[in-house]
Amino acid sequence: MPPERLADLGEFGLLARIRALVGSSYLGDDAAVLPRTAGMELLATVDAQVDGVHFLRERMIPQQVGRRAIAVNVSDIAAMGGLPRFALVSLLLPADLSVAWIEALYDGIRQETVRWEMQVTGGNISGTPGPLTLDVTVLGEVETGCALTRRGARPGDPLFVTGDLGRAAVGLHLLRRGESGSLVDAYCTPVPRVGEGRALLRSRLVHAAMDLSDGLGSDLYRLCEESQVGAVIEVAALPISDAVRVAAATVGLDPVGLALFGGEDFELVVAAASNDAGTLQRVVAEVGTPLTVIGEVRPAGEGVTVHLPDGSKRPLAGGWDHFPGAHA
Amino acid sequence: MPPERLADLGEFGLLARIRALVGSSYLGDDAAVLPRTAGMELLATVDAQVDGVHFLRERMIPQQVGRRAIAVNVSDIAAMGGLPRFALVSLLLPADLSVAWIEALYDGIRQETVRWEMQVTGGNISGTPGPLTLDVTVLGEVETGCALTRRGARPGDPLFVTGDLGRAAVGLHLLRRGESGSLVDAYCTPVPRVGEGRALLRSRLVHAAMDLSDGLGSDLYRLCEESQVGAVIEVAALPISDAVRVAAATVGLDPVGLALFGGEDFELVVAAASNDAGTLQRVVAEVGTPLTVIGEVRPAGEGVTVHLPDGSKRPLAGGWDHFPGAHA
Repeated sequence: MPPERLADLGEFGLLARIRALVGSSYLGDDAAVLPRTAGMELLATVDAQVDGVHFLRERMIPQQVGRRAIAVNVSDIAAMGGLPRFALVSLLLPADLSVAWIEALYDGIRQETVRWEMQVTGGNISGTPGPLTLDVTVLGEVETGCALTRRGARPGDPLFVTGDLGRAAVGLHLLRRGESGSLVDAYCTPVPRVGEGRALLRSRLVHAAMDLSDGLGSDLYRLCEESQVGAVIEVAALPISDAVRVAAATVGLDPVGLALFGGEDFELVVAAASNDAGTLQRVVAEVGTPLTVIGEVRPAGEGVTVHLPDGSKRPLAGGWDHFPGAHA
Repeated sequence: MPPERLADLGEFGLLARIRALVGSSYLGDDAAVLPRTAGMELLATVDAQVDGVHFLRERMIPQQVGRRAIAVNVSDIAAMGGLPRFALVSLLLPADLSVAWIEALYDGIRQETVRWEMQVTGGNISGTPGPLTLDVTVLGEVETGCALTRRGARPGDPLFVTGDLGRAAVGLHLLRRGESGSLVDAYCTPVPRVGEGRALLRSRLVHAAMDLSDGLGSDLYRLCEESQVGAVIEVAALPISDAVRVAAATVGLDPVGLALFGGEDFELVVAAASNDAGTLQRVVAEVGTPLTVIGEVRPAGEGVTVHLPDGSKRPLAGGWDHFPGAHA
C-alpha cells in the first residue's frame, strides 16, 4: 500500500491527527487564550526553519526537524533569562510529504515542548509549492523588569560564553557526509541554555546577553551595536573541545573559524563586571555548564577585534575569509 | 540603475531599513518584552500567507500584501472579542525581490498595524527558494474569562453573520481579470471586525463565535463540531449585495455558491439566544455593521444542512459541487 499522502487526508483530517498528538484544545478556536503568571511579563520570539537553508530534510529524521524548530526559538527565550511557556507552530507543507512523516515531525515538536514544560497552543497548516518550512513562535515569561537584553555591556566587562563553540558547525559538515554522533546531534537538536539563562538572571549581575545563532562573529557585532561598545575576542581563550578539533581536521576545516563563524551553537554570550566573574561562573557551573571568559568589552571607538595567538590583532569581519593569515 | 536587490543589501542591511520603518526597538533583542494590561488575558494566533495560494503578488501592490497578512490575523483576535496588540512578522523572501518592494510591503504592515493601534514587536527574515510567504503572529488581549469561543452554541439559537458574504470571493475573480474597485479591495485588504467583536463581547449575550476565513460552508462545520451541535442555513436569508450578484453574473458564477464557499470574507458568524437577537443586532449596528440572521443551531443529530429557496434541504458539504441542483 502506498504511504498516505497529505492530499488524501486533507487539512481537516491532518488537524484532527495533530490535535490528538499535541492536545485536544489545539486549534479549537480562532486564537489561543493563554493564562498569565502574576509578576511575570511576556516574551515573544519567532524563527523560521526552511528545508535546505536551516535544516536538511534528506539527512534528518522528522523528529529532529520538529525538535530543532522548537529549540532554536526556546534559545531566544533563554537568552532573555526567561522561561518558555507556549509554542505556535505554522507549517508550510509541500504536497509530497507523507502523513506519517508529518506525524513524526509533530512527535518531535511534542518531545521538545514536553522537555521544556511548554504547551503547543496554536498553529497553522498551509500547502506550499516551495520547501518544507516550520515557522515557530514561542512565548515565554520573565520576572517583570528583569529580562536580560543586549544593551548594557560596559567597556572593561569580561565577555563569557556558555559551553563550547563550533560543535554544531562541524556537526553539520559531518551530517552532510552521512555521519552521526554527538556533534551531529549538536546541529540537529541543539540544547537551548534555559537553566543557564535563569541562573544568570537570578544572579542580577548580567550587563548584557544574547544567544549565538549566526555565530559569535556576527552575533557579537549586534550585542556591541545595541550596547554601543566595542569588543576584543582572545582566540586562544575560545572554548573548543578536542572532539571539535579532531572532527574539523577530518573535514579539512579550521576549528577556530568554525567557533567564530560557524553559528548554530545556541550558546549564550554574556557581559558582566569583572569583579563578578567568579560568582557568575559558579552559578552557571551549578547548572552543569562551564562559563568561559573569551574576551573583553572595549570602548565603541575600538570596534570589534580578534586577538590572534601570535599577538596580532584584526578587525572581526563577517566571515573567516577576511582573516587570510589565520588560515596558516 | 538596476533596482537594489536583497542580495546587495544583506540581512543586516534590510533589518536596519525595517527597524527605521516600524520602530527602533524592532528586533533589537532575542525576544520582545511585552507589557501586560491588568485584568486582561493573552490571545495568540498565527496565519501564513503564501504567494499564489493566499494572495497574488503579480496582481497586488506590496502594501496590499502586507496589510492583508496583518488583517487576516487581526480577524482571529476579533472573532474572540479581543483587541489586537502586537504583531510578529516572519518573512520568507525569494531572492528576486527588490529592496523597494520589501520596504513597500513593510509600509503596508505598518499601515495596518497603525490602523488597529498595534505594535510590530518582532519578526524574522529568511531567504527561501520557494514563494514569498508572510507568516504573521498576532497577540491580543481580552478581559479575563470573557473570550468568545466556538463552544457554547445551543439548539434553537439563531445564527448571525456580520456584513455581507461573497465579496472577497468575487473580488478575487475580478482581481485575476485585472479589475479594481471595492470588491477587489474586499479580497486584497479585508477589514477585520474588531469593533463588532468588541461590541458582541461587551453584550455578554454571545454563545459562540468565529470568523469566516475558509467560507461559511466549512467554517460553520468547525463551530458546530466544537459546540457539538448541528445547524441549518437559510439560503434565502444570506446577505448578498446587489454588487456581488452583478459581479458574479459578470464572471459567470453563482452568488450563493460564492457566499457559502468562497471564503476570505472575514465576517463573524455568531450564535446567541433568540430572545437576544434584537439587542445583538442593535449593538453591532452601533458600530455601523448589519447583523443578519442566516439560520439556526440544531441538535447534533441533524447535521449541518442548507434550506434552499425551493423548500428542499441538503446536507452542507465541503464545496458547492456537492449541490448540483443549486446551480440551476
